[in-house]
Amino acid sequence: MRMSRLFVRTLRDDPADAEVPSHKLLVRAGYVRRVAPGIYSWLPLGLRVLAKVEAIVREEMEAIGAQEVRFPALLPREPYEASNRWTEYGPNLFRLQDRRGTDMLLGPTHEEMFTLLVKDLYSSYKDLPLSLYQIQTKYRDEARPRAGILRGREFIMKDSYSFDIDDAGLERSYQAHRAAYVRIFDRLGFDYAVVQADSGAMGGSASEEFLVVADTGEDTFVRSPGGYAANVEAVTTVAPDPQPYDGVPAAHAEQTPDTPTIETLVDHLNERFPRDDRAWTAADTLKNVLVMLRYPDGTSEPLAIGIPGDREVDTKRLETQVAPADVEPFGEADFERYPDLVKGYIGPGVLGSENATGIRYLVDPRVVQGTRWVTGADTPGSHVIDLVAGRDFTADGTIEAAEVRAGDPAPDGSGPLELARGIEMGHVFQLGRKYAEALGLKVLDENGKLVTVAMGSYGFGVSRAVAAVIENSYDDKGIVWPAAIAPFDVHLVVAGKDPAQFEAADDLVAQLEAAGVEVLYDDRPKVSPGVKFKDAELIGIPTIVVVGKGLADGVVEVKDRATGDRRDVPLADLVTTLT
Amino acid sequence: MRMSRLFVRTLRDDPADAEVPSHKLLVRAGYVRRVAPGIYSWLPLGLRVLAKVEAIVREEMEAIGAQEVRFPALLPREPYEASNRWTEYGPNLFRLQDRRGTDMLLGPTHEEMFTLLVKDLYSSYKDLPLSLYQIQTKYRDEARPRAGILRGREFIMKDSYSFDIDDAGLERSYQAHRAAYVRIFDRLGFDYAVVQADSGAMGGSASEEFLVVADTGEDTFVRSPGGYAANVEAVTTVAPDPQPYDGVPAAHAEQTPDTPTIETLVDHLNERFPRDDRAWTAADTLKNVLVMLRYPDGTSEPLAIGIPGDREVDTKRLETQVAPADVEPFGEADFERYPDLVKGYIGPGVLGSENATGIRYLVDPRVVQGTRWVTGADTPGSHVIDLVAGRDFTADGTIEAAEVRAGDPAPDGSGPLELARGIEMGHVFQLGRKYAEALGLKVLDENGKLVTVAMGSYGFGVSRAVAAVIENSYDDKGIVWPAAIAPFDVHLVVAGKDPAQFEAADDLVAQLEAAGVEVLYDDRPKVSPGVKFKDAELIGIPTIVVVGKGLADGVVEVKDRATGDRRDVPLADLVTTLT
Repeated sequence: MRMSRLFVRTLRDDPADAEVPSHKLLVRAGYVRRVAPGIYSWLPLGLRVLAKVEAIVREEMEAIGAQEVRFPALLPREPYEASNRWTEYGPNLFRLQDRRGTDMLLGPTHEEMFTLLVKDLYSSYKDLPLSLYQIQTKYRDEARPRAGILRGREFIMKDSYSFDIDDAGLERSYQAHRAAYVRIFDRLGFDYAVVQADSGAMGGSASEEFLVVADTGEDTFVRSPGGYAANVEAVTTVAPDPQPYDGVPAAHAEQTPDTPTIETLVDHLNERFPRDDRAWTAADTLKNVLVMLRYPDGTSEPLAIGIPGDREVDTKRLETQVAPADVEPFGEADFERYPDLVKGYIGPGVLGSENATGIRYLVDPRVVQGTRWVTGADTPGSHVIDLVAGRDFTADGTIEAAEVRAGDPAPDGSGPLELARGIEMGHVFQLGRKYAEALGLKVLDENGKLVTVAMGSYGFGVSRAVAAVIENSYDDKGIVWPAAIAPFDVHLVVAGKDPAQFEAADDLVAQLEAAGVEVLYDDRPKVSPGVKFKDAELIGIPTIVVVGKGLADGVVEVKDRATGDRRDVPLADLVTTLT
Repeated sequence: MRMSRLFVRTLRDDPADAEVPSHKLLVRAGYVRRVAPGIYSWLPLGLRVLAKVEAIVREEMEAIGAQEVRFPALLPREPYEASNRWTEYGPNLFRLQDRRGTDMLLGPTHEEMFTLLVKDLYSSYKDLPLSLYQIQTKYRDEARPRAGILRGREFIMKDSYSFDIDDAGLERSYQAHRAAYVRIFDRLGFDYAVVQADSGAMGGSASEEFLVVADTGEDTFVRSPGGYAANVEAVTTVAPDPQPYDGVPAAHAEQTPDTPTIETLVDHLNERFPRDDRAWTAADTLKNVLVMLRYPDGTSEPLAIGIPGDREVDTKRLETQVAPADVEPFGEADFERYPDLVKGYIGPGVLGSENATGIRYLVDPRVVQGTRWVTGADTPGSHVIDLVAGRDFTADGTIEAAEVRAGDPAPDGSGPLELARGIEMGHVFQLGRKYAEALGLKVLDENGKLVTVAMGSYGFGVSRAVAAVIENSYDDKGIVWPAAIAPFDVHLVVAGKDPAQFEAADDLVAQLEAAGVEVLYDDRPKVSPGVKFKDAELIGIPTIVVVGKGLADGVVEVKDRATGDRRDVPLADLVTTLT
């Protein structure tokens, strides 16, 4: 491909709406072009990379015996009604009506459709195990589409689904997919972590995420020296054992004027009610946070969360726990409806289904029986001291809503946790029987008995991968593609204007292409060498060959885009050097 | 691929909603599966055929230097507003709103988006000529989705667009695409015709359609012995020269009671007003037909059409002429609003912008100056005889709305027309400057002057092709694939239950695959030979190899699916025979 004919224009400036490196670079280097928020066109360079990612995914899916099919993107409402996702997806779903007024949707994922297809065609244990996959365009109406193709509203996914007669089969299918994902992630050159994930709204049991490690990632995950790794939403808190509280004095309310924050409260406690053993800390206080849960069907419910005062509520962890409800702030109007709630001094005395407000009250798992707390006394300017969990108050249950912090213990005892950020690129998931039950997918087993099929679902973000690779591999000059998915193998630049250079370059390109090397040939006669080099570094093809002054000595320069290493290679050796 | 693992179930019965052979066979043989009206999933067999069609199209596009890009299917409203197609497409367009209430659509075709992309990146004559294409999923909300994937609501198209500095360049790009289409149609083994097409709603000038000749086609086209070929909508009527009418008597109204139809009128004329020279025929009468035109913006307008009484109005030809308006019947309520219209006796006396009704009046091109007609006298039971066009009445213009009949003369004098039916598979189109003007695509020419770019657009129905091929190639047993796009090259069937047959088959399959032959291997141990043969013929792979009793003599049977020819081939020769 000649640069003079390639449909591309590199841009000097970052697009105004771009925040992350991959977004800036893919637009500047002419790989994609924005059409609407979260909706992009693929230009020739981008489409070549996309096709290479697709080919790798396809190879690894075929290698585990998965068969390719393709579902439509425009789907009827009924199957999603049966699984309840028509409602649960809320505003994330693109909905529309056809000319007859029939409700339809643009598929965000296809569990329902695959379940129905297998139900439609298969009926016996002899037909199983079965794995099907598709590489297909999906839609999600993201609230804040940004980060370019890293988080688009129209995107390409590989989604596969496994069908087994029993749990043991599901486990085998799951492990086969997991191993295929490891190979895909290795081949794409990702820096990645496989972490335990919360099963969340998808239903089902075992679930792991493949995260690309990147500071720009939207997901936080943890890992321990002993090998534990989990999405922060899936981390379970290590709770202390119940504690004896025989000698603990009775709870006593005290005047604590002007202490609406944890910090002012702790200072006040240390000044007016000093402890003998040590100073009060925020961890001694029990903070009660109110939120409103908004359900997809439009109803809402207040929720009170009690967590140690040294921690914040982690919105994502909370959302995972209450899904499919959305979490909204508890506003002034809400407070007015509950006059028993005294802002800044809310305590367990009015919370919980048995107390004055009747608001459901869930506490952090650290609030075990016998733990002593300072918390609001439900009167302005007053807190209760020596309030003992299990003696003086009981919550409606526990909730994993407090932030996870570096240094927290791993739940499996494998050491202190470290926090990192990642991009969710893959998700392997033992769905179990949720969809098969909802849609009636049963087959006859060996004894002629109808049994519900065990399913797994396995997603991989094909278009997202094109961007995520860059988040792992770029520098201040541009993209640095791994060889496996670079749009071309070699970027050959003619550095001067000497016709002999162009002739030599023509000849080298022909030789390389004959040897199966994909070459992007910068043959532009009137563009300066400086601009050509900048373009080459921005576009990021792994090997740059420069036909320049060295030609007089029979050599060309071969430069490694990643390391910047250069060396002169005799013309006659170029093909063997690069193949 | 082993039949025992392939995700497929062949069906004995035609699907209830299927009318055309390709629809019946693709569903019965397990290539596609219906999801909703006009919306299908591709099963593994179907996806393989689709991929082969795509590969051929891609090769031929690359061969003419077109570069592949990919646009989203979900598009913003604005560009389609600028071209007026947001309105013109009417109910055929899938429209939706995102969570912010922004109007969006599912792209039916991408002229606007390509125009804007080139405007975005290119600015000079030096950048041209340019040809871009995509293979992409498109949407049209068909009123009557039927015929399976032959006419779906979600379908895959190859659409390309050319950009040139001038008309000569456009002509070159057009001819290059046309030649590529000829190669694609030849490679796919189509029986096809390239016909002149009406430019219709797309705007622009030269336009040809590639029709697959098939009785099940929705399009009618004509061809002449001298090589003229046109879509029936594009046929122009050969009008007679103006005729002298010096000796023609003055028009005279006559009583013609009970003659509401042309037939009764002609009988009445021959009985009561016989001609000297010959009998009256329907062609002597002028029939006036009223319709309502409904425009996309919701407004409507009546239209009167005058055609010789021996012809009917051809709705498709009429619709093409009045597009983007839809044609609706002229109802009772409409007649009530125009009391001057006397049903069964309507004549030019009250039609036309200058007469009583003011209804626009367009006549068939055969109604030239001096022609004599019998037509309605606008009084019940009365007709006018010797009414001369140009002397006694004048229409507002002419219209190509009368049916074209076999035997009509070709407009280029190349002989009488024959009528045939076809499936529109491709369309090549000189758009000219309609979209470039609407969206402001201009580049600097050699003199530094801004000029509007000349565009072409070229469509090919990729998913439709999978069905259309079958309309050309099937028999009572099933599909007969051309080798170029068959899902596999060879269908190898084990006919007995002898383990030696399975061993020999395993070995042959391994040999064939090693030689690059794609084999579908029917290894099902408990399925009868009869069922296996029926499946093989239904699925339609070109070569069927049977490992059966001949194995004892060291031979297998090789059967040609198309001709039914069988011959025995020694085991050792099978690979060379089939490669």
